[in-house]
Amino acid sequence: MTDLDGLADRARELDATDPLARCRDRFVLGPETAYLDGNSLGRPLTVTADALARFAREDWGDRLIRGWDEQWVALPTELGDRLGSVLLGAAPGQTIVGDSTSVLLYKLARAAVDAAPAERDEIVLSDDDFPTDRYLLEGIAAETGRTLRWIPTDRAGGVPPEQAAAAIGPRTALVVLSHVTYRSGYLADAAPITGLAHDAGAPVLWDLCHSVGSVPVDLDGWGADLAVGCTYKYLGGGPGSPAFAYVATRHHGVLRQPIQGWFGRHDPFAMAAGYEPAAGIRQFLSGTPPVLATVPLQVGLDLYAEVGIDAVRTKSVGLTAFAVEYADALGLELASPRDPDRRGGHVTVRHPDARALVAALWERGVIPDFRAPDGVRIGLSPLSTSFAEVAAGFEVLSEVAGLRPTS
Amino acid sequence: MTDLDGLADRARELDATDPLARCRDRFVLGPETAYLDGNSLGRPLTVTADALARFAREDWGDRLIRGWDEQWVALPTELGDRLGSVLLGAAPGQTIVGDSTSVLLYKLARAAVDAAPAERDEIVLSDDDFPTDRYLLEGIAAETGRTLRWIPTDRAGGVPPEQAAAAIGPRTALVVLSHVTYRSGYLADAAPITGLAHDAGAPVLWDLCHSVGSVPVDLDGWGADLAVGCTYKYLGGGPGSPAFAYVATRHHGVLRQPIQGWFGRHDPFAMAAGYEPAAGIRQFLSGTPPVLATVPLQVGLDLYAEVGIDAVRTKSVGLTAFAVEYADALGLELASPRDPDRRGGHVTVRHPDARALVAALWERGVIPDFRAPDGVRIGLSPLSTSFAEVAAGFEVLSEVAGLRPTS
Repeated sequence: MTDLDGLADRARELDATDPLARCRDRFVLGPETAYLDGNSLGRPLTVTADALARFAREDWGDRLIRGWDEQWVALPTELGDRLGSVLLGAAPGQTIVGDSTSVLLYKLARAAVDAAPAERDEIVLSDDDFPTDRYLLEGIAAETGRTLRWIPTDRAGGVPPEQAAAAIGPRTALVVLSHVTYRSGYLADAAPITGLAHDAGAPVLWDLCHSVGSVPVDLDGWGADLAVGCTYKYLGGGPGSPAFAYVATRHHGVLRQPIQGWFGRHDPFAMAAGYEPAAGIRQFLSGTPPVLATVPLQVGLDLYAEVGIDAVRTKSVGLTAFAVEYADALGLELASPRDPDRRGGHVTVRHPDARALVAALWERGVIPDFRAPDGVRIGLSPLSTSFAEVAAGFEVLSEVAGLRPTS
Repeated sequence: MTDLDGLADRARELDATDPLARCRDRFVLGPETAYLDGNSLGRPLTVTADALARFAREDWGDRLIRGWDEQWVALPTELGDRLGSVLLGAAPGQTIVGDSTSVLLYKLARAAVDAAPAERDEIVLSDDDFPTDRYLLEGIAAETGRTLRWIPTDRAGGVPPEQAAAAIGPRTALVVLSHVTYRSGYLADAAPITGLAHDAGAPVLWDLCHSVGSVPVDLDGWGADLAVGCTYKYLGGGPGSPAFAYVATRHHGVLRQPIQGWFGRHDPFAMAAGYEPAAGIRQFLSGTPPVLATVPLQVGLDLYAEVGIDAVRTKSVGLTAFAVEYADALGLELASPRDPDRRGGHVTVRHPDARALVAALWERGVIPDFRAPDGVRIGLSPLSTSFAEVAAGFEVLSEVAGLRPTS
């Protein structure tokens, strides 16, 4: 057991020198031993409850309908700009907050596929992409007469540029890829993949759900066309919080999204006859924006603005490296990339009884996620997870799984 | 001025005998003289702030990802069933909560139009329908090769069955109508209109945004096919709160909605290959449900369940009748139906300087809404508006507009 003791000691040392350790106390910390699923649903900040209550009493209760003129009409783009600036590498006027990731992915992918010439009859995606992406694109392919072309993922669960290059060509209408894959945490090399798609004349839609808030994103720098992502993982938006979408300025007024609701219209409150898309990114809005539901995201972004994504990434790499070290010590097979430059904010290990193992861990207050068929996915939230928490989680895992240090 | 004094006295008497008067104190009441726009954004209940804070700390903060298994996966249908039972006249298994009204209208209307034979090439709607409905259907018509056929509204801003009958026929793919129109408050006679559409072989989608929570709705009784509505008006869901959709059981597995995200799939957490629609109403879900954003709606429904929609309707009719009486006394032209059986929960009066008048009223703490070109829309929330509040609002209106009693 000496080795596990040594790892517990190392965790304490890492926490002692972690410049972001102070952030942990700003989160609601429950009685669980180790919460290792913050990449699925992040913990709330302690200020979130008060922010929600204050919003209900003051912003909503005192201002009532006047709130729309005073602040809420602009919210989808103002909050989008803030998200773009703090976390996405997106200049203003290209990002909106609203809808769900699925709805935004549908709107953007439909717009891109509808705009592609008929001979571009393939939608290219990874064969291990997040389910909703695969299902949505299957539907879009069916309704637009396109077919899906799958990029095979490698053993690390990702898509290297050379594999992407083999699938993308003159028949490509749109490429949809995850920046960080949901299963293994593989971090795509986004700039070269975007570049090679452009060389083939195809736009790229990046799904940022599993990267935003743990890995620097540089949409403008990559030359990205489109992106979507969610806010309930690292960003602390709460269960089912609104999503975001990015559309590069060059596509405004060119792409046309299908759900042409009143908030995407020029001068919506004129309530006039005929739909005319709003200028700029607002043309990608549809219904009334989910104002109340963005309150937790707003306080989440405050913390990111204070800390900076580079410090978050440094901590994230430290956390995943420590998890890999612990997994190695227990002889667990790693399903995630060993190279930190190709790894996002979570680490998945393989175990033949993964489903039962995760259930047993939950019983013991250690909360990772099961990913079929054999994955134990360990999510590490840079702002709220401590190294000691990781060590505590692995220690219980070693007991439950009957594992002993291998060295 | 004697007549206005008399109306103020009548307001006090009406409040004194109003069995729902006790409900008003359960709402956050700001310093404004009269809030007459609760049909656009309802006041929050005082318990809403605490419910949101408690949700953040306990349901979300303590249960974290476990909340999905424990309660949230079922939320869109359980809350939908509750809404269906308390307010919609919908048996269980036909109603979901989520998305925005615009997105749900798109999904349901697309599903219905896609399922219609090609010779049914018209989508029928009212020429004064709420803007987002018109814009969305314009888009759906364009993408499905259909045309819009407009039913002219009468002077009271509504669609009587005989006018609907003249527009609906063998070319009708879908009929979309508002149960209560946003502008005049005209209350459609839903059952006969639904029946005559069915006689012509066409399904009907009812937009309940301006009726739900103020007027009894009987979707199953009408034989309705589809319905959508929002929850931020009478139901107290808060700015941009999630919408709801109803799909009659006979259409499940027949209609197919286009945004096939993971929550609409059979067994979404299997994350398996290929989209297979879930059984029943869940096939109309798309993305991750907006859990946190439904908290205010849940406490709003508690109050409706306690009070009952029939008592609410009685109060609503009383409020609108009193507003009509006051408008008549001031010689204002009524844009809403005089017949209470054809009138929803709001009353609109005409004034040549309506825009400036509403701006001046806002300055004085009286908050109605302006509706182009000449409407002052007076929304009356049965659970939070008192008769005295209506009288106070009209008194300020009479001063600002320089109106004197005509009798």
